[in-house]
Amino acid sequence: MTDRSPATPAVPSRGRLRPLGLDEVQITGGFWGRRQQINADVSLAHIEHWLDKTGWAGNFDLAAAGTLPEGRTGREFSDSEIYKTLEAMAWEIGRTDDAGLETRFRSLVRRVAAAQEPDGYVNTQFGRPGQAARWSDLEWGHELYCIGHLIQAGVARARTRPGADDGLLEVSCRAADLVCQTFGPDGVVGLCGHPVIEVALAELARVTGERRYLEQASLFIDRRGHQLLADVEWGRSYYQDDQPIRAATIFRGHTVRANYLAAGAIDVAVEQDDPELLDIVSQQWTATVARRTYITGGQGSQHQDEGLGEDWALTPDRAYSETCAAVASVMVSWRLLLAEGHSRHADLIERTLFNVIATSPSWAGDAFYYSNTLHQRRPGSVPPKDEVCPRAASSLRAPWFAVSCCPTNVARTLASLAAYTATVDDDGVQLHQYAPASIRTRLSDGRVVALDTTTGYPSNGVVTVEVAEDAGAPYTLSLRVPAWAAEATLVDQPRDGASVMSLVGPGTVTVTRDFKVGDRVELTLPMAPRLVEPDPRIDAVRGCVAVERGPEVLCLESTDLDLDAGSLSDLRIDPAVAPRDVEGRVVVQLLVADDEPTDWPYSADGPHAPRDVLAIEATLIPYHDWANRGPSTMRVWLPT
Amino acid sequence: MTDRSPATPAVPSRGRLRPLGLDEVQITGGFWGRRQQINADVSLAHIEHWLDKTGWAGNFDLAAAGTLPEGRTGREFSDSEIYKTLEAMAWEIGRTDDAGLETRFRSLVRRVAAAQEPDGYVNTQFGRPGQAARWSDLEWGHELYCIGHLIQAGVARARTRPGADDGLLEVSCRAADLVCQTFGPDGVVGLCGHPVIEVALAELARVTGERRYLEQASLFIDRRGHQLLADVEWGRSYYQDDQPIRAATIFRGHTVRANYLAAGAIDVAVEQDDPELLDIVSQQWTATVARRTYITGGQGSQHQDEGLGEDWALTPDRAYSETCAAVASVMVSWRLLLAEGHSRHADLIERTLFNVIATSPSWAGDAFYYSNTLHQRRPGSVPPKDEVCPRAASSLRAPWFAVSCCPTNVARTLASLAAYTATVDDDGVQLHQYAPASIRTRLSDGRVVALDTTTGYPSNGVVTVEVAEDAGAPYTLSLRVPAWAAEATLVDQPRDGASVMSLVGPGTVTVTRDFKVGDRVELTLPMAPRLVEPDPRIDAVRGCVAVERGPEVLCLESTDLDLDAGSLSDLRIDPAVAPRDVEGRVVVQLLVADDEPTDWPYSADGPHAPRDVLAIEATLIPYHDWANRGPSTMRVWLPT
Repeated sequence: MTDRSPATPAVPSRGRLRPLGLDEVQITGGFWGRRQQINADVSLAHIEHWLDKTGWAGNFDLAAAGTLPEGRTGREFSDSEIYKTLEAMAWEIGRTDDAGLETRFRSLVRRVAAAQEPDGYVNTQFGRPGQAARWSDLEWGHELYCIGHLIQAGVARARTRPGADDGLLEVSCRAADLVCQTFGPDGVVGLCGHPVIEVALAELARVTGERRYLEQASLFIDRRGHQLLADVEWGRSYYQDDQPIRAATIFRGHTVRANYLAAGAIDVAVEQDDPELLDIVSQQWTATVARRTYITGGQGSQHQDEGLGEDWALTPDRAYSETCAAVASVMVSWRLLLAEGHSRHADLIERTLFNVIATSPSWAGDAFYYSNTLHQRRPGSVPPKDEVCPRAASSLRAPWFAVSCCPTNVARTLASLAAYTATVDDDGVQLHQYAPASIRTRLSDGRVVALDTTTGYPSNGVVTVEVAEDAGAPYTLSLRVPAWAAEATLVDQPRDGASVMSLVGPGTVTVTRDFKVGDRVELTLPMAPRLVEPDPRIDAVRGCVAVERGPEVLCLESTDLDLDAGSLSDLRIDPAVAPRDVEGRVVVQLLVADDEPTDWPYSADGPHAPRDVLAIEATLIPYHDWANRGPSTMRVWLPT
Repeated sequence: MTDRSPATPAVPSRGRLRPLGLDEVQITGGFWGRRQQINADVSLAHIEHWLDKTGWAGNFDLAAAGTLPEGRTGREFSDSEIYKTLEAMAWEIGRTDDAGLETRFRSLVRRVAAAQEPDGYVNTQFGRPGQAARWSDLEWGHELYCIGHLIQAGVARARTRPGADDGLLEVSCRAADLVCQTFGPDGVVGLCGHPVIEVALAELARVTGERRYLEQASLFIDRRGHQLLADVEWGRSYYQDDQPIRAATIFRGHTVRANYLAAGAIDVAVEQDDPELLDIVSQQWTATVARRTYITGGQGSQHQDEGLGEDWALTPDRAYSETCAAVASVMVSWRLLLAEGHSRHADLIERTLFNVIATSPSWAGDAFYYSNTLHQRRPGSVPPKDEVCPRAASSLRAPWFAVSCCPTNVARTLASLAAYTATVDDDGVQLHQYAPASIRTRLSDGRVVALDTTTGYPSNGVVTVEVAEDAGAPYTLSLRVPAWAAEATLVDQPRDGASVMSLVGPGTVTVTRDFKVGDRVELTLPMAPRLVEPDPRIDAVRGCVAVERGPEVLCLESTDLDLDAGSLSDLRIDPAVAPRDVEGRVVVQLLVADDEPTDWPYSADGPHAPRDVLAIEATLIPYHDWANRGPSTMRVWLPT
């Protein structure tokens, strides 16, 4: 162990918990191990292919050659996809030390570096003759947003390969220096229409020790909410410029923007030791989770502005639930977990990982959801393999989008996922997410933490943690019991000694002992399928239930029914018949009506009594698995 | 009576029913009479004020002066607002013969005429040096759309003041001639991204007798659906270019576009004696009413694309229900009623008039709804009096919008409203909508129809029709019994003879007699408030009821409650207590819970049992009246 910054996405200098680097914690298989493998084997190359095919990577070559704007392709923020790809590669190299990937990474870094101008500016869309001037469109230009993602890539590289000579950190620092110079206390009183520069600068300050990056992040946070940005059709809340972050009580406006901003604000609060700001954002998170979050953990109920929507307005069939919003939400929850240590933050991370982030990529890893509806009413069509698709138009995952923020965001999250599974503090180690994993680290005083986790989670609920090395002195092993796990059991099995079994409930369960090689702690989570009722204030799903099993939200997909796809609107679940686990399949009892539409669908003649012609058994599948077997209809919420 | 085209919005040359002109039928007071008066006294001048204030009318002066594009203001379709204003004025002059309005009308016509180019082209946005070329953006340019509204104004003028020397009909014909020449069988194979030219050309053919206008309308209808327009993010169904109208089974895409197109298709089908096309559109209407229409008659459940949305996707809190879509829907239903004579078409017109079109203007007539939500979750703020507002951002009506299609559309509808209330055929007269009214016409063989209707409808349900002149021979008086009127009574009261009372049900009730002066027919509709249940397939309002009274949908507005506005989400209606009519107020029993949000709004611990702390009585008001008393929250659908 060294005392350098660990190879992990967020490294606060204080807080309840300390994150582990990718050299300290690895996922060794299972559900997430498979997804990491597909991400490495398929998705990254798929993304590189599309960055070249669309010309978005080529824009940097044109910039270096001085021939822009001619031939430039892509939206104003396409540069950021190259940076998020670099970040994903950096984490993946840190995870697997893949030499081929290192070569591809360095090649892509060179193309970016060649496009950087002498004063540090880098953006292929602005500043050249024939282009709009630098910083001339702070509302929509995304220049600071792009630099933010560049910095995040530089930070990931610096943490996974400190001192490497590829130059990405230097490119990032030069861009950051220009940002500080341009928008500093004596510079332009401006901010970016799309937050992310804030969290990026705060992280760069952590990596480099340069406090002015943090101060610039803080300045951007404080400037927001004072109407420095122009109004837009759906209001300045779209980019959180309606009120200062310290005055807001809930996340609002564009969902990705809201979460990136919150992540930056937490980093600034932690580094500037500002418990008031931390508490404000934490309370906003609590309110947002209570009133503006789908059962999947997804956020954003409005297509029009990709926005969070009002309290309780969580319509499943117009759920936007953008994949990137889930990535951003995990960033926020993780920072709150590190700062405050509450299991509810890890609960939301688990829910969001299994039910949004795992949903976005196809099984094969070469197609993605941008938005994640909870109710598909019509089978869509198979998107063309070789065309850029609209972001939220198909019922099936698409290979690439005109706005293609999500594939690269998923890639960087999966590559760094191990870092979100466990932490340490002065008293011991905390397991937050369950996967086959290996942990090798030391506590601040040198006690050895060496643990191997085996589990079939989420197929089953048994998580076995085995000690691989003597600790040297007692420490505390903490395990999260998810909020949904009403009756879990913990078995403490010292290699030499009697096992002790305890019934445990949601929250955190701990075992403190001088752990020896071969000691085991086994947590068994209840995996029977559960009927879940929504809060009665969520109007759109009144009179419905969902079924969950472990951390997974389940859904009914027409593919699993011998019925017309459209008939999902004619089904009800019989709530008197509990969902059953039949050899790993979750089976429910459905009643199928054959109502024809009436001329007018509103009646004063008492309730419609649908004629149930058929009681059938149906298999529910994990929501993240849907739409992998061709066009279909689907619903998460089942009318009772 | 003359045999000229009657002064009425649609004049088919064949069909089940013949429309009456504004010289044959007038509304003489009551609910709609008041609204017509406010439209004439306030709204028209308000609109003229804004057309000048925004410069949209001034664009024509700049065009005439040859100084465009410099100084042009407004969106690419702003010319159409001037044309719809002219149409509204033409109907209003036809209705009231207002000399002052005639002067204003002629002045505005002169400004338009001066901007017309020698070849008939008129549009302030295209075709000049510094502007895009004519017809270079058929998807979004709205040139044919604008000309369509110009033609509709010309048609209205020609019908209300045939032979007038103002020149508007001539301006319209010159523009139409250019359209036929440019887009005719040997011309550009193109069509407009926003239908309306079709219905306008068909009407112009009716007024002028020029069949080539009809043929051009038919050509535009047939061209649509063959992907001649570019794809857009939400698909070509947005402008109905996804499939030919003859292949479609339901209205889809942008709601206003879908309805304008259907109106044009019906006109073409009728004039070309194409019963197959008529039947196709009629079936599309039936499907749309059954599965894609709000209880208010409003259509359009998607903000993003102002679109109809999927079957059953009728979320009240994201209802778009654009005012213009209601205007367009009335145009469609009216054409189907004239062609087919079914009372269900008049039923939807009534519902749409009372619950969308009457909702748009404020009580004062100087502010409007563009979209008509059925559930307002947060009290908004009062829009500034002197600023152009976003179209769907406020909970309150706004004086004007950046896209301001709705105020002018409401104005032209209200000014011509009498024409939608009654028709004749060879056997007699049909009353479709109830208002204090006067009818003076003759049947084809000369029998005199002279009827005076008195009624307090919709405050009460008694409609009295009195014969004002001897008929000369028997004819049939038909009265629509609305679909909601389960138990109505009809009293036939000959001046000299015994009254006969009958119980009648929904549909059409007729009295055939040789009507004499003083004879009366009195229809009494049941006006007790009704609990209405939605079809179980409308997911978003499952477990809710609405309350209707007569033709009016009612709502609960926070203004009428001694509670926090936000607490509308904590209310339930007690369906065991029937809504009561208390001296004209509709009173319901509500249960108010004081649930605090939980940390996570989904629970496997059985249904949330809200703690009812308060049973209160609350007054419901007509939905069209809401938000006239300051910011508030509101809901139409009440959870049970």
